[in-house]
Amino acid sequence: MTGAAESGRLALIAGRGGLPAALVAALPQPPLVAALEGFVPDAVAVDHVFRVERLAPFLRLLQDEGVTRVVFAGAVTRPRLDPALFDPATAQLVPVLLAALQGGDDATLRAVIGIFEDHGFAVQGVADLAPALLPGEGVLCGAPTEADARDADRAAAIVAALGAVDVGQGAVVAQGLCLAVEALPGTDAMLDWVAQTARRPNPAGAKGVFYKAPKPGQDRRIDLPALGVETLHRAAAAGLAGVAFQAGGVILLDPAAMVAEAGRLGLFLWARP
Amino acid sequence: MTGAAESGRLALIAGRGGLPAALVAALPQPPLVAALEGFVPDAVAVDHVFRVERLAPFLRLLQDEGVTRVVFAGAVTRPRLDPALFDPATAQLVPVLLAALQGGDDATLRAVIGIFEDHGFAVQGVADLAPALLPGEGVLCGAPTEADARDADRAAAIVAALGAVDVGQGAVVAQGLCLAVEALPGTDAMLDWVAQTARRPNPAGAKGVFYKAPKPGQDRRIDLPALGVETLHRAAAAGLAGVAFQAGGVILLDPAAMVAEAGRLGLFLWARP
Repeated sequence: MTGAAESGRLALIAGRGGLPAALVAALPQPPLVAALEGFVPDAVAVDHVFRVERLAPFLRLLQDEGVTRVVFAGAVTRPRLDPALFDPATAQLVPVLLAALQGGDDATLRAVIGIFEDHGFAVQGVADLAPALLPGEGVLCGAPTEADARDADRAAAIVAALGAVDVGQGAVVAQGLCLAVEALPGTDAMLDWVAQTARRPNPAGAKGVFYKAPKPGQDRRIDLPALGVETLHRAAAAGLAGVAFQAGGVILLDPAAMVAEAGRLGLFLWARP
Repeated sequence: MTGAAESGRLALIAGRGGLPAALVAALPQPPLVAALEGFVPDAVAVDHVFRVERLAPFLRLLQDEGVTRVVFAGAVTRPRLDPALFDPATAQLVPVLLAALQGGDDATLRAVIGIFEDHGFAVQGVADLAPALLPGEGVLCGAPTEADARDADRAAAIVAALGAVDVGQGAVVAQGLCLAVEALPGTDAMLDWVAQTARRPNPAGAKGVFYKAPKPGQDRRIDLPALGVETLHRAAAAGLAGVAFQAGGVILLDPAAMVAEAGRLGLFLWARP
């Protein structure tokens, strides 16, 4: 990355959820905000809405506005494409776009980064721009027991194994047993399911840990996992002892509010090494 | 295994569900049937009910009845132990039993096999005794498309990766994306969840495949995955295109009935190589 890129104008390519607003609040200056049609963020004013079928003119627009750096933040699912809407320049990108959209998550994200880089933008990560949102190692709230630590170890091993096949970034383990693994429907759906279904072998034993981490080897500039206060409510409803995550690898949408809420709910909150 | 062991009296250690009855129906002679208290099988008369706390006298009883071979079939979850019930001989086994019950599934099953072998029994598998219940390679019903074959490939890779961390034996993939992964609550709970939650990226695209396989490297004499007609109903309710499984590694509780039911439901049923 050049000095010019580091200091040039920043565009936030925002997806759904609370992360874009959390990032904007943590930045020293307001970025230009763009959002994919259908995936508009909560509580952030959007300057430009774009469609994948008109990506080339959108990239030109960013260049014309003096943007040299982009950051991706927020949730986006694979959009449907309308063949009638492609402009000629974007049509040239179709082979790359289709390959990207048909691959696994990692392949898609690598391809998206590649397209922005090929057009001269530096792609930065939330960790570069707002490191305070990614807590380093330490127990932020509560006190995990030895049984909780063993459950967190096992969950971390499961998430690492899943990452190798490009699935999910989370798992729930209690008493050494895997109660649930995150897949396409996401964290909230998984925790709700644990609340509904998963009984522990020993009802009086360790209540279990939800663990979250990036996929091993994933590009950390995009799609880092994020946790918010709502996740804590769901973890509590699922009867868990606490939430653990990889130190420096997971975004907390509002760290101070999460620590306070974990305390209120009686959950530990632990950034593991 | 000795010739005497191969021809001696067989005991079926039965768990819950339909597999014990399916196995008894497929055997040339009726076995002695034993079941762990609380895990009595469907539609099979049980000769002996035993408890883990009195395992040593139970093993002696089997020896006294001339049993030389045992086969495990049916579902059992980790039992709670009542310290007051241990007899002195079983108390000697407690260190082995506790280590077994606290490990992952594979460790537990290896330890259980070890205990029976240490007491002179040959442990046989369903595949040894009733090979007709484990279909070899071939499409048993319907016609998987190329997209279905790709989804089955990806699901097989996911199940293999999960097996390496001793989690589950199944996954659901549609359009290349992992909709669900099997964990402690089991196949039925996973398929019901897919029915409730998991939308496909392209509603008109491939509907998805449920894939089942043993864990790589697992001891195939115990805890082979099993599929029944009810699984097909759940797969159909989840909107899937079909069910695939590892040829020779998965037990069909009633192969003929499953092929007929898959046809009625419009599902493919595929024993993959």
